[in-house]
Amino acid sequence: MVYSGTTFTGSASGQVATGTFTRDTLKEREVLIKITHSGLCGTDLHGLHADLALGHEGIGIIAELGPGTSKFRVGDRIGWGYIHSTCGECKSCLVGREQYCPNKEAFMAANKDQGSLGEIAIFKEDWLFKIPDNLSSEHAAPLMCGGATVFTPLLEHCKPTDRVGIVGIGGLGHLAIQFAARMGCEVIVFSGTEAKRQEALNMGAHEFYAVKGVSDFSKLGVKKPIDRLIVTTASLPDWEQYFKILAVNATIIPMTVSFGKMEFPFMNLLANGYEVIGSILASRQVQQEMLNFCGRNKVFPIIEKFPLTKEGVVEAVDKLNSGNMRYRGVLTNEI
Amino acid sequence: MVYSGTTFTGSASGQVATGTFTRDTLKEREVLIKITHSGLCGTDLHGLHADLALGHEGIGIIAELGPGTSKFRVGDRIGWGYIHSTCGECKSCLVGREQYCPNKEAFMAANKDQGSLGEIAIFKEDWLFKIPDNLSSEHAAPLMCGGATVFTPLLEHCKPTDRVGIVGIGGLGHLAIQFAARMGCEVIVFSGTEAKRQEALNMGAHEFYAVKGVSDFSKLGVKKPIDRLIVTTASLPDWEQYFKILAVNATIIPMTVSFGKMEFPFMNLLANGYEVIGSILASRQVQQEMLNFCGRNKVFPIIEKFPLTKEGVVEAVDKLNSGNMRYRGVLTNEI
Repeated sequence: MVYSGTTFTGSASGQVATGTFTRDTLKEREVLIKITHSGLCGTDLHGLHADLALGHEGIGIIAELGPGTSKFRVGDRIGWGYIHSTCGECKSCLVGREQYCPNKEAFMAANKDQGSLGEIAIFKEDWLFKIPDNLSSEHAAPLMCGGATVFTPLLEHCKPTDRVGIVGIGGLGHLAIQFAARMGCEVIVFSGTEAKRQEALNMGAHEFYAVKGVSDFSKLGVKKPIDRLIVTTASLPDWEQYFKILAVNATIIPMTVSFGKMEFPFMNLLANGYEVIGSILASRQVQQEMLNFCGRNKVFPIIEKFPLTKEGVVEAVDKLNSGNMRYRGVLTNEI
Repeated sequence: MVYSGTTFTGSASGQVATGTFTRDTLKEREVLIKITHSGLCGTDLHGLHADLALGHEGIGIIAELGPGTSKFRVGDRIGWGYIHSTCGECKSCLVGREQYCPNKEAFMAANKDQGSLGEIAIFKEDWLFKIPDNLSSEHAAPLMCGGATVFTPLLEHCKPTDRVGIVGIGGLGHLAIQFAARMGCEVIVFSGTEAKRQEALNMGAHEFYAVKGVSDFSKLGVKKPIDRLIVTTASLPDWEQYFKILAVNATIIPMTVSFGKMEFPFMNLLANGYEVIGSILASRQVQQEMLNFCGRNKVFPIIEKFPLTKEGVVEAVDKLNSGNMRYRGVLTNEI
């Protein structure tokens, strides 16, 4: 038996190219997935110049079960994200923080010949997740990486009684607003301009502040200090300004992928007892709970759909690159 | 009745001066304390140029009770630290993190006419603490600020099964080593040179590394990654080097009083799921528990004693300023 399907890959020139993924057997605990939907994540853009099958927010149908599988049945609707496998033996795995497993196989580093922007995928069942019936595939796709990334620190560090600030309304931010609102938090959104005010309020925000050009945040008029600050902007913000509107013992959670240095006015951190939290992705337990949470509480990403073809991928990549995606791109062969 | 006693203060010229503290009555809930011991803390040096009674690590005997007091009896041996009072009404007070109370009265900002470097003090009973019988006054003094500062984050963030790194062996570091060792942690000490190796091991350290001149910490030979890192050096360290020997999900607790900016390689923080914790002082519950912990587990500061006279204060200040105090100075009128 030969399994073969088209993939969409990066290339030396940075252009989206077409590739082929093939396998001649399903190995122990592997399943064959017929892909129906894929999210497009900012991290995919980092892979555009590599010979790498793109896409790591996959939704599909289990088409065949390999030897030793037990988690799914043929026909099940499942999803996967950034991580393909973890070792199950290291401390991070054993304490349930397996997304930090040093032996993990993940997007960009392993299984480079297959991604969720393609026709089929073959993965071990361990890091595949059942999509709940009350969550559509097109809504589930962006949750597989973007949703997981934002949900974990909210779950771990925000109480339903907290005032949670969300900086930036984009792929991550628009999910963070909905998560925090459905968790019962008071949600305060900081955006550049007034443009997204109504949309933020519709998502569940209770207060909205436009910060562009405001040189002193103590004059923003924020009603009460912020307990937890989730930063989702493309670059790190001016911490000194945000420190002016934080409560003592505030938690700062920067989710921005930024390769520079983070600079803090240090005595502020110390004297106010702030905590700065680094966090990526989700453990499997949290990933499944996040999907269930979204179905139950109607947290649905706001998406733009594109056909899962080369032209569709090119169009979606261009839109994401231009900063105009509202708010997550989903590629699908169901349109 | 007039209460009057000598104080030792800062002055415009930065020289230790002699002052007088007087009151003509004990107000509601105030007690009169006859001071027997005072620690000398790095923070006192920041007050040397002000007209400010120095000392905020006091030990003494309750000599008289004002109206409405209920916590102590005359003759009780008590101590106090940086904080004199808190409002009891703000969120920080109500959730038991009262050291962050925005309405607190504390050293350098309130009650500037009295300090623990003096003969008597009059404070409300609220922020006075009973010294347990198994803890001597000279050992208790440096615990009132230095001990409290280091104990809180250890209690909140270090488990007895963690590998706890202590950077720097000084007034705070030598207490952190003892605390972590008595909490059952694996204690790994980082010091400039080999000079304090044996002393660190005697305090309970399990591993010791001299870091001066080491340009690549991955070559230090640290046996296993560090779970929690307590930084007590006078200036902030090269984080990039320490990041090389941290475990994923490590907690970083910088206790240094430094007025610059803290610079982090940001993607490291994010991808490894680090947490950076700001922390000062202790709540009253933790402060009392810290004193009890020290008595029960024989955590005794290593001290140098000086007479509680102007000459003694000058000598102690000079020694602390020179960086040669081993490790906390205690002034007392019992020598």
